[in-house]
Amino acid sequence: MMSRNDVEKILNSLRFRYEQGTVIAVVQDIDTKDVLMVGHMNREALEKTLSTGLLHLWSISRKKLWLKGERSGNYQRVVKILVDCDGDALVIFVKPMGPACHTGNRSCFYRELRELVNTNSVNVSSREQPQ
Amino acid sequence: MMSRNDVEKILNSLRFRYEQGTVIAVVQDIDTKDVLMVGHMNREALEKTLSTGLLHLWSISRKKLWLKGERSGNYQRVVKILVDCDGDALVIFVKPMGPACHTGNRSCFYRELRELVNTNSVNVSSREQPQ
Repeated sequence: MMSRNDVEKILNSLRFRYEQGTVIAVVQDIDTKDVLMVGHMNREALEKTLSTGLLHLWSISRKKLWLKGERSGNYQRVVKILVDCDGDALVIFVKPMGPACHTGNRSCFYRELRELVNTNSVNVSSREQPQ
Repeated sequence: MMSRNDVEKILNSLRFRYEQGTVIAVVQDIDTKDVLMVGHMNREALEKTLSTGLLHLWSISRKKLWLKGERSGNYQRVVKILVDCDGDALVIFVKPMGPACHTGNRSCFYRELRELVNTNSVNVSSREQPQ
C-alpha cells in the first residue's frame, strides 16, 4: 500500500497527454503474458487502481470512471505496473478473476488481423460495454 | 503478402477513432512476450507495415509517419498482428532488430511505476525521438 504522498508523486511524474487527460494502459496477464485489453487511465483511475488493487479505467467514449468487472464480476487484480520511457503509457500486470473481454474471451485480442478480410464488422455489442 | 483488396478490407473494418485518425498499437516481442512499446497507427502506417513487414507508426506529437528504426537501424520486423474486439487497438508481434526504446533499453517499459516516487522526471531526451 502506497502513502498518499507517494501516489501524488507518481501522478505528478506521469504525462496524462492523451484524450481527456489520460495515459494508455496495456493490461497484461502476469502468468501467460498475453495482452488482455488496452484502455486509458486518467489521474482518478490510476489513483483508484493503486488504492484498491483492482483495475480501474477511464472510458473515453462514456467519459466516466470504470471499475473493470463492476457489472460482470470479472475483476482484474493488479500485481505490478510498469511505466514507459516518456511517462505516457503503463503496462498493468494482472491476475484475472474472469475473462477480460466483454465477449467472454479471456483476452480482447482473440483474432488475427487477417481474419477481418472475411468479416465486415467488429464486435461492439456487449455484456459489459467496451470503452 | 496481402492483396491490395484485402488490405483495403482490413483498413475499412478497423475503427481509427483516436487522435488524428489512429488505432493504438501495442508492440510485443514474439519470443519473450514483453511489451516493447506503445504507439499509434493511422491508415497509412498500417498499410506501410503490412506492405513492408516493418513496423511503421504515426507520431501523434510530430504528426508524421514514422518507420521505427529509420534513424537508429533498430527496425522491428512484424510477425503477426492481433486485433481487439472493438477494432480500435492492435497487438503487433515483432522480432526486434535492436532495442525498441530510444534510451537503448530493449523495451520502453524498463521501470516499475513505484520507481517514479524517487525521480522527478521521465526520460524524453532522445537518440530517436519518442512520439
